[in-house]
Amino acid sequence: MDTGTSTLSDAVDLAHHVNTKSRSRHPSPLKDIVSYMGYEGMISLAGGLPHPSLFPLNKTTFECLDPSADKADGVILRLGRGSDPADLDLTQFLQYGSGAGNKGLIALCRELTTVVHTPPYNFECLLHPGNTNAWDKVVGLLCEDDDYVLVEEYTYPSAQALWIPLGIKAAPIAADGEGIQPSSLREILQNWDEKIRGARRPRTLYIVPVGSNPTGTSISFDRRKEIYSICVEYGKTILSDHWSHTHNEAVDIIIVEDDPYYFLQYPGYKQTGSKSKISTKDFLSDLSPSFLSMDTQGRVIRLESFSKTLFPGLRLGYFVANPIFTERLLRATETETQDPAGLSQAFVLSLLSSWGIDGYLLWLQHLQEQYRLRRDWLLDAFHQHFVVNHTGPEETACVSHPEMNSHIPVFSYVDPGAGMFVWAKFHFRGVKRFAEIASDGNDPDPEQSFADEMWRAMIDELVLLTPGSYYHPWQGADNKTTKARGAEAQTAHFRFSFATPTSTSTDLGS
Amino acid sequence: MDTGTSTLSDAVDLAHHVNTKSRSRHPSPLKDIVSYMGYEGMISLAGGLPHPSLFPLNKTTFECLDPSADKADGVILRLGRGSDPADLDLTQFLQYGSGAGNKGLIALCRELTTVVHTPPYNFECLLHPGNTNAWDKVVGLLCEDDDYVLVEEYTYPSAQALWIPLGIKAAPIAADGEGIQPSSLREILQNWDEKIRGARRPRTLYIVPVGSNPTGTSISFDRRKEIYSICVEYGKTILSDHWSHTHNEAVDIIIVEDDPYYFLQYPGYKQTGSKSKISTKDFLSDLSPSFLSMDTQGRVIRLESFSKTLFPGLRLGYFVANPIFTERLLRATETETQDPAGLSQAFVLSLLSSWGIDGYLLWLQHLQEQYRLRRDWLLDAFHQHFVVNHTGPEETACVSHPEMNSHIPVFSYVDPGAGMFVWAKFHFRGVKRFAEIASDGNDPDPEQSFADEMWRAMIDELVLLTPGSYYHPWQGADNKTTKARGAEAQTAHFRFSFATPTSTSTDLGS
Repeated sequence: MDTGTSTLSDAVDLAHHVNTKSRSRHPSPLKDIVSYMGYEGMISLAGGLPHPSLFPLNKTTFECLDPSADKADGVILRLGRGSDPADLDLTQFLQYGSGAGNKGLIALCRELTTVVHTPPYNFECLLHPGNTNAWDKVVGLLCEDDDYVLVEEYTYPSAQALWIPLGIKAAPIAADGEGIQPSSLREILQNWDEKIRGARRPRTLYIVPVGSNPTGTSISFDRRKEIYSICVEYGKTILSDHWSHTHNEAVDIIIVEDDPYYFLQYPGYKQTGSKSKISTKDFLSDLSPSFLSMDTQGRVIRLESFSKTLFPGLRLGYFVANPIFTERLLRATETETQDPAGLSQAFVLSLLSSWGIDGYLLWLQHLQEQYRLRRDWLLDAFHQHFVVNHTGPEETACVSHPEMNSHIPVFSYVDPGAGMFVWAKFHFRGVKRFAEIASDGNDPDPEQSFADEMWRAMIDELVLLTPGSYYHPWQGADNKTTKARGAEAQTAHFRFSFATPTSTSTDLGS
Repeated sequence: MDTGTSTLSDAVDLAHHVNTKSRSRHPSPLKDIVSYMGYEGMISLAGGLPHPSLFPLNKTTFECLDPSADKADGVILRLGRGSDPADLDLTQFLQYGSGAGNKGLIALCRELTTVVHTPPYNFECLLHPGNTNAWDKVVGLLCEDDDYVLVEEYTYPSAQALWIPLGIKAAPIAADGEGIQPSSLREILQNWDEKIRGARRPRTLYIVPVGSNPTGTSISFDRRKEIYSICVEYGKTILSDHWSHTHNEAVDIIIVEDDPYYFLQYPGYKQTGSKSKISTKDFLSDLSPSFLSMDTQGRVIRLESFSKTLFPGLRLGYFVANPIFTERLLRATETETQDPAGLSQAFVLSLLSSWGIDGYLLWLQHLQEQYRLRRDWLLDAFHQHFVVNHTGPEETACVSHPEMNSHIPVFSYVDPGAGMFVWAKFHFRGVKRFAEIASDGNDPDPEQSFADEMWRAMIDELVLLTPGSYYHPWQGADNKTTKARGAEAQTAHFRFSFATPTSTSTDLGS
């Protein structure tokens, strides 16, 4: 955790969100003795640390791009031991850490958070080994077994795979091209019936608010304000006297903001202006404000990751959260993972120190531009091979039907203003094979059966999409069909990723 | 997991040990599509991976010691991207991995395991991000909430801190200078009363078998054989028909072998022979055989770590286990952590490839010698400042009492034949201040109260030891006193670490 001081107001006391298991964690007694080790003249026979003179690595060099990505060896980072001339001392990254992560790196994460989000309260940062593990720790912090978690209508399957064994289920919130609908969130909370659901009302909202995986949509600023205010509103009775609450009482909502695509926000398709670099200030002001930026109370746990902005193999990111939560997350870190890997910490600290915050933001502009280009390649291909009709926020890709003198809709999508994905709803009305399956009457989910056939047929044509079924919220084994989920009849979704293909490979017709 | 083939016999089916939560894990659906990505000519719009051309790291160099530790820049490892001439292609380590870890590194771990332990069945290896996390995953695999776990009489506190929030308690096994006593293990299993304990009989044995933390002792070969056979014996009824068992039935025991100090096995104090390097074969044959080496059934889960042999900041190690367990551990890896950090994997693979297995074993000889030296420095200091009497396997450090013409015992210890620690039992009989505390009658644990005072007094003299109380097995909040634990009256333990101090700083008298 950082020890930064600030003139901001402190977070609201949200200790009632810490679950039973997390409350019962104690700091490791071994940590007590660490403070004594620093005494001048102390002969420490206490630590169980291996001796640093016996680590076989002496020096490391990283050759990196410069922030504008112009020169492949633009930045050379040198890390050495002891007397070696180096940009950064390597030894501290080879030894066991404190659990909280390197202080210099945390300070840098804190600075970056302030520059980008300016959270309006006294937050803390804590390193973690990637957002997969960060979400594991947040579930371990907030959720009881058999809880429900509020999620988007379609949501990231690995986030769910983690908690399915705990008996946790999803309470999906309806969404459209502007992200989840506040009215749907309010309805779920207002009408929650513990008897019918067999579980207390959910108090955790898990969300990928920018370039959502899989839908590619981002939550608009107005909706964010409304969602935040609903999350606060539901805690009014609690916050005045939080120790008296029971599981049956109304309780406020914690927002878990998993936001790896935050810097990959794009202008609309064909709305691209100048491709020249803009100032840091302009770059930042073009980005949609995060939930963290409006978090006056400390009820947002933001999961930051370097996987998309530097590279995934780092397994490095950080929490930004209320100190009540970071303290408990640190306890979990001590027993579950310890510090993120030292070479990853060393690389990120030395790279960001060398680039500077401004350099890093310049690099992010470059990334944004590169992924924007890839988004455009994919949508270009859609326009090249289909007749694309505008129908409200949605676009519908159609094929001409010369005999009927009309367009037959194939799939609809929303121009993804962020992230790496286009979420396409395929229309099955009038498709002969689908009608066959549906008319049989024995198939409990004809939409899914036809989607499965279609997926395999596309593979035979050497085009691989991700089936939309992977992203259905887990509402228990009995609620999996298109009908049971309340999804639109005669449709099914597929996810296109535009992160990996080149402009040539997305030329689908060739 | 590795895909190595072997002529060894397969493991016994021990699926009945997989707990309820771990059983309910499913493979990520996203993994299904990975197999299709490799099809020739496939246009993949499926993966959500960031594009490797947008990773800002191009080249890495590691300057390492040679295996004999003679030259600081003896080995230079070069990792580059694509066309760069390099020892190893860096890109694969920057991208997301499969969860199982790099195949080349797993093959190397498998080879090392075969050379060192020759497990007598068809085992698998799976990478993990350090033994802290490995133990977290094993608890998540084997233990139900409120279980008991069999542990040594004194045991590593962080291993326990992990499971205390789950309501798990320790069932301590009595130990002496040769490690845990098979008779004590048998007695606990035979006399387990579910009604009194409020929990099913334990079926997991957690053990640091070599240079135990904190006791420094290692389990002798004969005891290992007997312990392994008890663990098998208790499953006889089960193995013939394992699906019919209930929680009330007898069940066999899984041995979790957490063995970071395995290569730090020393000759007895003052029994050191030649310090010249010996052959790999002789080095290995001098090491005590592991539980894994006698595991004909696949009931040992071995936690291997590079933290003590290379450096802790790597956060990298591997499981060696029955494929039934590694498959479930891989499922947990996918949702809880993903692959260990890429730079750590890249470093270890390229270093061990460069050194070779023989080179690595030569390096381990060097380490062994260095820590043996440090053990000797500490015991030299004991002999220099106390009269050390031999009393069976124990040594007792005494001060002379000229008036009484006798020796007063201060503390007893066992020469640690391995690891980094000396476990010292301090004697309080006849100590005035202790008598004062004890005679008062109001102190529920006078031994601990005096030990606390003594610890602080030593700190005032600038000597820091680790209090033995940190290593007491957690048997619940009501069983913490010296008396309740059944520990020897008028004594308390402290742990000396000899890993960090130099020969000068351990000269305690100066």
